[in-house]
Amino acid sequence: MTSLTLTFLGTGTSQGVPMIGCSCDVCTSRDPRDQRTRTSVLVSTQNKTILIDTTPDLRFQCLREGIHNVDAVLFTHPHTDHIMGFDDLRRFSELRDSELPIYATPDTMSKIKDAFRFVFDEPKPWKNYLRISAHSLNGVFTLGDLEITPIPLAHGAMTTQGFVFSRNQKRLLAYYTDCQEVNPEAITAAVGSEILVLDALRDKFHPTHLNFAGAIEAAQKIRASQTYFTHFCHDVCHAKKEASLPAGMFLAYDGLKVMLDA
Amino acid sequence: MTSLTLTFLGTGTSQGVPMIGCSCDVCTSRDPRDQRTRTSVLVSTQNKTILIDTTPDLRFQCLREGIHNVDAVLFTHPHTDHIMGFDDLRRFSELRDSELPIYATPDTMSKIKDAFRFVFDEPKPWKNYLRISAHSLNGVFTLGDLEITPIPLAHGAMTTQGFVFSRNQKRLLAYYTDCQEVNPEAITAAVGSEILVLDALRDKFHPTHLNFAGAIEAAQKIRASQTYFTHFCHDVCHAKKEASLPAGMFLAYDGLKVMLDA
Repeated sequence: MTSLTLTFLGTGTSQGVPMIGCSCDVCTSRDPRDQRTRTSVLVSTQNKTILIDTTPDLRFQCLREGIHNVDAVLFTHPHTDHIMGFDDLRRFSELRDSELPIYATPDTMSKIKDAFRFVFDEPKPWKNYLRISAHSLNGVFTLGDLEITPIPLAHGAMTTQGFVFSRNQKRLLAYYTDCQEVNPEAITAAVGSEILVLDALRDKFHPTHLNFAGAIEAAQKIRASQTYFTHFCHDVCHAKKEASLPAGMFLAYDGLKVMLDA
Repeated sequence: MTSLTLTFLGTGTSQGVPMIGCSCDVCTSRDPRDQRTRTSVLVSTQNKTILIDTTPDLRFQCLREGIHNVDAVLFTHPHTDHIMGFDDLRRFSELRDSELPIYATPDTMSKIKDAFRFVFDEPKPWKNYLRISAHSLNGVFTLGDLEITPIPLAHGAMTTQGFVFSRNQKRLLAYYTDCQEVNPEAITAAVGSEILVLDALRDKFHPTHLNFAGAIEAAQKIRASQTYFTHFCHDVCHAKKEASLPAGMFLAYDGLKVMLDA
């Protein structure tokens, strides 16, 4: 029985791949794995469907994957490519006819509020406006039978939140996107996970994202059963890059589903 | 010689069509004209390419239409479905290597700034950040050989901007979206245009949008050579609705191009 399904909704960096007006080999590739919307995942269990981040592509991602229900939304950080689809959540509060729980740091919640003030104002002028219950990230919390541990990660001058999902003390998934390094505490928190998802922007150094060398080094310390890299820019050709990776490490792509058995 | 091309980038209301999790006849229609991203148009002449609004779907719309250049952006109003793709303009300032001119009312500009503060901050930490020059809408202005007149329109409690595009005193295009009525001044400003684009959400009354009855009535007063309705919700089936319209009136759809000869 599948006990957790990870669906990659998007695997691209801030401008997506293809980039507007770019004619490079990857932006014009016919391999669908080279077409990347902005980075986001869905984590599904028997009784909970959890979305991480609301990219500007959220509506397309939900239509593509046939997503009709979301039970909670977690935010990694407030950058544009991770939050600007926020209002497209309104269908989920409408369909469930209740407030949608949102988990974010106070800084991220504040920046979402700056952009989408009407969602936070009461009373609502329209019955189908997005309705949320805002939860401030503050240590371990549970959703259904999943225990979720937020893990601070350095992303240039800012801190993003990684998330480790466990059940019965077993680490099922560590999701670390938008980080320039994985510090020893974050390594320790993820060691031995079934699935690791890790930022790997490109080969060249970047001041706020892991490159492949750094991501592979961190993955080798974490030793997950399966490691998936994500958040690629158009420097990364899926087929070429995946062929070069160590055993057990893969490139994620839009629409990829990874299923864990109980 | 084509002297103006109007491209409909999106023709849907705030949630687009199909809506997430909806199985109605229109949301499941196989007619591509029933698939609607959020409402926006591109107005192109020999020497200017002008975008109206930056929907959350802007990147998809630009990729779909092969848009590699934008010379200026006009905003009708600051609702989420009209502004949240703002940062995807960054490719246009990068490709032209100069600031992209943005035209909006002070209220709209302020709300864009609330959501995308980093675009307005100086100095920029990254060279490929979106660079803009902000212009406050204040009466008639020109872009290339087009004279553009902003026209205030009532959209519930707020005011949106319509735009009338003229050349040599000839009215080429009146673009009136997101309005609940077209007042006498706005009728007068658009009378006799070659092309009229008009909000027509659905058949039923709506407190902030024209319905078809109201839109047809306004169109009959304006007497444009061609009238295109836009900003439809999923109540509207393209084929059925278009068959019922008066002569010279049409439903716009995503990707439709209307060309005017010189």
